[in-house]
Parts: sequence; C-alpha cells; structure tokens
Amino acid sequence: MQELLDLLPLRDDLRGKSAYGAPQIDVPVQLNTNENTHPVPQDVQDAVVKYAAAAAATMNRYPDREFVELREALALYLGHDLTKEQIWAANGSNEVLQQIMQAFGGPGRKVLSFAPTYSMYPILASGTNNEYIAAPRAEDFSLSPEHAAEQVRLHQPHIVLLCSPNNPTGTALGLDVVEAVYEATESSNSIVVVDEAYAEFALAGTESALNMLQGRPRLIVTRTMSKAFAMAGVRLGYLAAATEVTAALRLVRLPYHLSVMTQATALAALRHSGSLLANVEDIKRQRDRIVTGLSSLGFTPAVSDSNFVFFGGVEDNKQLFESLLAKGVLIRDVGIEGFMRVTAGTEAETTRFLEALAEIVG
Amino acid sequence: MQELLDLLPLRDDLRGKSAYGAPQIDVPVQLNTNENTHPVPQDVQDAVVKYAAAAAATMNRYPDREFVELREALALYLGHDLTKEQIWAANGSNEVLQQIMQAFGGPGRKVLSFAPTYSMYPILASGTNNEYIAAPRAEDFSLSPEHAAEQVRLHQPHIVLLCSPNNPTGTALGLDVVEAVYEATESSNSIVVVDEAYAEFALAGTESALNMLQGRPRLIVTRTMSKAFAMAGVRLGYLAAATEVTAALRLVRLPYHLSVMTQATALAALRHSGSLLANVEDIKRQRDRIVTGLSSLGFTPAVSDSNFVFFGGVEDNKQLFESLLAKGVLIRDVGIEGFMRVTAGTEAETTRFLEALAEIVG
Repeated sequence: MQELLDLLPLRDDLRGKSAYGAPQIDVPVQLNTNENTHPVPQDVQDAVVKYAAAAAATMNRYPDREFVELREALALYLGHDLTKEQIWAANGSNEVLQQIMQAFGGPGRKVLSFAPTYSMYPILASGTNNEYIAAPRAEDFSLSPEHAAEQVRLHQPHIVLLCSPNNPTGTALGLDVVEAVYEATESSNSIVVVDEAYAEFALAGTESALNMLQGRPRLIVTRTMSKAFAMAGVRLGYLAAATEVTAALRLVRLPYHLSVMTQATALAALRHSGSLLANVEDIKRQRDRIVTGLSSLGFTPAVSDSNFVFFGGVEDNKQLFESLLAKGVLIRDVGIEGFMRVTAGTEAETTRFLEALAEIVG
Repeated sequence: MQELLDLLPLRDDLRGKSAYGAPQIDVPVQLNTNENTHPVPQDVQDAVVKYAAAAAATMNRYPDREFVELREALALYLGHDLTKEQIWAANGSNEVLQQIMQAFGGPGRKVLSFAPTYSMYPILASGTNNEYIAAPRAEDFSLSPEHAAEQVRLHQPHIVLLCSPNNPTGTALGLDVVEAVYEATESSNSIVVVDEAYAEFALAGTESALNMLQGRPRLIVTRTMSKAFAMAGVRLGYLAAATEVTAALRLVRLPYHLSVMTQATALAALRHSGSLLANVEDIKRQRDRIVTGLSSLGFTPAVSDSNFVFFGGVEDNKQLFESLLAKGVLIRDVGIEGFMRVTAGTEAETTRFLEALAEIVG
C-alpha cells in the first residue's frame, strides 16, 4: 500500500506520515480518549429521538446554513451576556480550530502553542499550511505569564493556542497568562485562542476566559459538547468571540457544514442539560478519587481541572500500559516518558482502574 | 462590521470577500438549490428514527473513525465490484473535495476546471491555498475530448475537476472526455476527479466514470446522498477510487469527522433506498416535462442528465427571476446572462413553475 501511495501526487509534507488516531481496542474499561463514559441519560436520549424525527421529515432540504436556533441555545448556555452573533460552531472543535487557521493563518503564517499540549494542533496547522511552533513549558509543565509572553514576542505567531485546562496535563491556566499573551500580541495583531474543551470539569475558583472577551476582539474561547455534554459521537464544537470573528469564519466555512441531525441533536441536549450536568459532578468526584488514589500508590498526579488525570512516577510507560490492558483497562500513553493519562470514568470503572493499578504496583 | 473585520488579521486573499450561499427566501415553490423536493418517504423516516435512537444511546463515545458499516453499504450501492477499501465519505461532497485538495494540492499547486461549472470549486481551491484555473468551454458549454486534453496539457494542473453532469448546465460528459483528460495528465501525474453528484438522474445510455476506475489509480469519482437520496440536510458526500487514494485522505481528514448521527442516518437511507429511488424516476419525468415545456415556450433548454434544467433564451435574468418570485416560484440566476437554472420538483411544483412562466411569457 505504501508503495502505491508513494506513486500518487501527495503533498510533499504528507509523505511518510501516518493517520492520526488513538488505538481503538475493545476492552471492558476504556479510559483512553477522555470520553464521558457515563451512560447517556434517558431523558436526553428521548429528546434526541424526538428532535431527530422532526429533522428526518425535512432532511431532503439543506439545513439552516446559519444554525440560528443552535447559536441562540449555545449563547444561553454560556451566559456572560453573549449573543448568538458571538457564537460559531462546527463538526467538533477540531473543525472550529481548522476554520480559525484557514481564516487567520495560511502559507507563510505561524501557529504557536506550548508543548506538551493537544496533539491535533500541529496536524491542524499542517493541514492548513501553517508553520507550527511548539514553544516549551516549565519542567513541571506549568506556564507562567512572563514565559508565555516572552515566547510570543520571540516568535511573533499569527495564532496562539492556549489549551486550558491543558491536554494532556489537565491543569487550567490562570487568566493572567491569557492576559499576558493577549497584551504581548498587540503589536503583531495575532489571534489568541483559549481552548476550553474541558471547562465544565474545572476545580472551584478556576475562571473561564469567557470573562475576558469583552473589549478583546482578537480573543477566541473554544468549547465542545463532546465531554461534559456526553456527545463525543455527535461532533459539535463551538466558540465565543467578537462578532467580527464569526463573520471571518463565514468566509471559510463550507456552506451548510452543520447537518440537520447535528443541529437537532445538539439542541435536544442543550434543552435537557440538567441530567447531563449532574453526571459532570459525579465525574469530578471520580477524578478526585483518582488523584487521591494515585498519590497513595506513590504516583505524582498533576492538578486536574478536567475529566482526566495526568500522572508522573511511572517507571516504564509501555509496561504499565500493557499490564493495565491485560486487566481490561485501557489508558493513554501520550508519549512522555514517566507519565501517563487516564480518563475519569464511572464509579465502577474508576474503582476497577485503581484496583488494577494497586495489583500491579503492590 | 466590515470595518471591525478589517482590523482582524484575516488571510490577505479573504479581504473584501462575501460568504458563499444562495439566497434563503421562504416562498411556496423553492426550485433554486437542486434539492430533492419530494417528501421523504415514511419508511425512510421511520428507519432514520430507529437508527438515530440506537446512535443516541452510545453518542457519549466517539464514532467509528473508519465508518466501516457505512463504507460497506456505499460499496454495495455503487456496485462495479467496488470494495469498502475503495470508498471514502465526508460531510457533504464539498468536504470530500476539500480533503482531496488538501491531500493532493496546496501552496504552489493548481486546480483546473472548465467554466461555467460548480461555483464551490474556486472557493474550495482558495480555502486550501491552491491556485484555481477556470479553463473555457465551447460557446454551447460543451466540452470535447480534444479541447479538454489541450487545456490540461497547457496548464499542467495537479488536480482536474470534471463535473458530470455539469452544474449549472446539466449535461453529462462522455467517458471519452474523462479518458482524454486522464491520458493527458499521465506525465504530470495529476489527480482527475469526476464529480457525479447528480449521476442517478442521468438519461438512459449515459455511462458513469465508475466504469473507468479499474487500472486508473489517479481517477476519483465523487457522489452525494444530497440529491437522489433526498438527504441534502444530512451532508453525506462520498467517493470511489483506488485504495491508495482513500489511504491518502486519511492523512488529512479530521479524526472522527463523521458523527454517529450522520453514519446512522446514511445507513438507514441506504438500507431503505427502494422508495427513495422510486422518487428519482418521478423527478426525471418532471425534468423531461420542464425541457418540453421550456421548448414550447420558446426557451432553449440544455440536455439534462440531472434533477435541474439550464435554459437559454432569457431576455433579462433579473426580470425573469423577480417575475417568478412574485408568483411564489424561486429559481436560480447562476450569473450567466441569458440563461437560468431551475430544479425539477414534484409534479405540482413543476406545473406551478411552467404555468407561472407561461403567464409571464404569454
């Protein structure tokens, strides 16, 4: 296959690359892709079916290109006096980020983020023909306002991606970091994206960058319905920003990019968010159990504002991965020696993970 | 808004552009976007709801990244001994084409098509940083094998897009044109795409480029479920090609780009295609009525292999558009003076269009 592929006129920088994707292994406890593993509440399922039935009756027509009802519902959910004109959405936050990079990046332009971070950033930058700069973090993976601002002034990127809480390390950024980066990019007139995919799982006292949007037209806050809303399968990412940012994204979006089914399903979930957000509280409890459990087993978990925990003190990544897999538990090796990442699942899944780990360590 | 937008660091070639999109006007007879205006058959709606209910129960998990079941069903539908390894799909054929241009095009590369043709081609080329070349057609909008091959040899594009039947003119290409273009691009090793979005509406005797795939690894045939399958709202475009082409597209696709709802809805429709394809026969009858009716009113309709008719003999595009709109009938001014495009609707809609036109002309 590789030989046949080599004969095709592939873009030069794709040659020899492999397709992105976590291993899809069918085991009882899958805690490797930060999904919401709690069952979808019945009232949400019922609402989705009802909305899907209405959508099926009109699916021969193109969807509302402006997805007005959905943008209204997302604005209402986010609060912060946001209006539907400040909301944009696409098929997963990956597509939201891709559209941002198409509109504000491109050949000769640069995207900067702070590694280790979300592994799709360099792939999205490459797919939109941007240069990608992986600026460093401190040794403990933290990011100070001074260091972040300095890196931004040094590299003069056109787009800065701040992942908060950061994936895979799990800790949220202080808004002082966002503010320092925004100020440091004033002269370069860069776009600053705060990727808050896991915001709903934040520890008490963690502030969202939504609080900073007012008066900052270059700031974009992205969110997703994949995690807290238990809809990884539905692919609905969104953002809040100045109205002119959403106008810019209309220039690069494919027309009718959000299907009637996507719009219907997302609306149903937003209008029945009570039981979904109740699950978030339980996931946070399981996350905290994991942090405590890992510490008592001698590992060093990072502070987690998300539905996953990043932990150090791993002697051999491959060995730990395989030992857990043999016990039916799948976690994620993110490629950082000595550290692993695990998703907070249901109470039973969390118990199984902690027990399996104790058996391995003990 | 434009002033605020101008302050943002927009990509240079997007400055001053407007978002793509046909007017969304709410009138009784909407024949402007080539939708399938026949009501979605009840058995298809029922199947979609059943499949959507199953999808809703597992939507907290990411979808099958490889959409194996859907590719199997699409291969079965297309026939021609195609296997699932030769099938690829995305959110509308626009996204399929975007992925082709990302994988095989990019900065410094060229995409060529023959104008007038599908108006998204130049926009997709620009969004993926390709140069777009609009090669000419004959005065009657036809395309001969000799002329097509000559243009391709002249411009040496990396990707050639052949729209068949062509939108907006409606006529299918002979396979001799596809063959001539494929041969003319042997030395440049270019990708040749035949966009068959409307293939199911072809006149008897029109051959699909699917017949040519065997032994031509640079040939891609794209299709959509938006038209014959009455699923414009669901956004499911697909293609058939050599296995190495689908491997190349995996390098640029966003992971999990097809949602569980999209996969479920498309599968439901494919497994209940009988009643949908019965509607196709009626649409072809209405299309033929339009051709006959237009001729008898003194217009010059093009041969149509699609669910729409392109016709000349229009004295004043704007005036005809407005006169029909005043009578509740929306058709498409595709920007070619003296010509208009109308979608073949239901029997009642077609009658209304022909009557309204007779009233205006008479």
